[in-house]
Amino acid sequence: MKTPSGENFWEKLRKCSDENSSSLVVGLDPNLDLMPKMYKSPEKIFSFLREIIDATGDLVCAYKPNLAFYISYGIEGLKILEELRKIIPEKIPIILDGKFGDVGHTGEQYAKFSLEVVGADAITLNPYMGKDVLKPFVKRNLGIFLLCATSNPGYSDIEAIAIGDTVLFEKISKISVEWSEYFGIKLGLVVGATHPDVFSKIRHYAPNAPFLVPGIGAQGGKLESAVKSGRTKGGIMPLIVSARGILYASSGKDFANAARKAAGKLRDDINTIMENYDE
Amino acid sequence: MKTPSGENFWEKLRKCSDENSSSLVVGLDPNLDLMPKMYKSPEKIFSFLREIIDATGDLVCAYKPNLAFYISYGIEGLKILEELRKIIPEKIPIILDGKFGDVGHTGEQYAKFSLEVVGADAITLNPYMGKDVLKPFVKRNLGIFLLCATSNPGYSDIEAIAIGDTVLFEKISKISVEWSEYFGIKLGLVVGATHPDVFSKIRHYAPNAPFLVPGIGAQGGKLESAVKSGRTKGGIMPLIVSARGILYASSGKDFANAARKAAGKLRDDINTIMENYDE
Repeated sequence: MKTPSGENFWEKLRKCSDENSSSLVVGLDPNLDLMPKMYKSPEKIFSFLREIIDATGDLVCAYKPNLAFYISYGIEGLKILEELRKIIPEKIPIILDGKFGDVGHTGEQYAKFSLEVVGADAITLNPYMGKDVLKPFVKRNLGIFLLCATSNPGYSDIEAIAIGDTVLFEKISKISVEWSEYFGIKLGLVVGATHPDVFSKIRHYAPNAPFLVPGIGAQGGKLESAVKSGRTKGGIMPLIVSARGILYASSGKDFANAARKAAGKLRDDINTIMENYDE
Repeated sequence: MKTPSGENFWEKLRKCSDENSSSLVVGLDPNLDLMPKMYKSPEKIFSFLREIIDATGDLVCAYKPNLAFYISYGIEGLKILEELRKIIPEKIPIILDGKFGDVGHTGEQYAKFSLEVVGADAITLNPYMGKDVLKPFVKRNLGIFLLCATSNPGYSDIEAIAIGDTVLFEKISKISVEWSEYFGIKLGLVVGATHPDVFSKIRHYAPNAPFLVPGIGAQGGKLESAVKSGRTKGGIMPLIVSARGILYASSGKDFANAARKAAGKLRDDINTIMENYDE
């Protein structure tokens, strides 16, 4: 019987990260517009993803499928998402990027979906509706990453609203520590790499929160600042997400090899930055 | 060719509301725990919902399926959501309650899902990541309701954070008017009925935003204050949502009749409050 604190995920993540010497999370976001020609049909997405997973499984600390890229293909897409767990080795955690933000009975259904339908180890959540959003996921012992400062241009519209001397995402970081204590869980934060100044601001309020960092590569974020400023006080490395830069490294027949090369390079780049930083 | 302003939805809503003399939105949230015994299996959900729709179609202005209650049953559930459009008469709008809050390529996939897979006329969105969230839905001419002040107890955690003299949800109301002008669309707001004081506060900043109001009934919100304070300056009635109170009005064989009775009563109660208010 699992105990409700998400430690299964964090432990699994640590082990996988150690074994693969990796802080790289590969985003599994199948996009027909970008996929190699011979895979450009919904029924071939599964084979495409299997090739990608086979080619990168020893280079990652987790995979992150985004719900949107599956349900947009309807039943066929959801079937692929359901079957991902069968082709991702059990020792590699799955972070389901659903950005769920609902409560009560509805939140329960999303938590049930994440655990029972997808077999995810962790999920991403939107904090807007308050800590009620976390409850059903805590109950099911799923790891949680809370949206904090995201990587899109419009992040300033709401996330960076000024509140006295701080801004909303700083307030959220602070509140996330309270929620973490309230539930007795380790609580991760999603921090985009496109705005390097946010790392130290968030770290100030949430010194121990592991960061999940999208926005490297296609979105133009800087790897070095993300790696250097993203580490927790306790030395937990930021989890660096890449999707397009790896999945679509080549649109030819060599896509799996190209994905392996791109993933290996990014993993090594992260480790090199970290080693130099330690010196 | 649709023009990107959501007017198809708002026009369809107005017509359906006029024809059925109704501001009632029935939430189609199939919950096996609450369903009549003879329907307690995923493969019977579709028949259950068809009975509910047949019994209430002339009493509503829209139906609101919540994504969570379908994907939690996996492929079978998504199939039901895909087929809802076939059993909901075309003239009745579908508001897909997905509380989507993602951007860029990912947001595009959710918008594609809403329009092409579900056949929705409108959706609910989470504003946290900024106006980027709205773009793909505006492009597809879907009606939009933005979460503002929700009906759950924990709404105070983030939504009611103090910002100077106001709180976050008031700020969001104000920003929603800017977004509405930026995109040239009518933009609805989700305002929970459980905190009656929020209606006039939000109305102050967003005088013309149609309200979608959950939290009546099972969640304990007060109908009268919702109806009275929820109307726009232009006289648009708030859309009152009920799900459990109608779908599970009876757990016996008479569930469809009981649903019809409950829906009819709520519709009439709303209209009576409004008529007395007009005098």
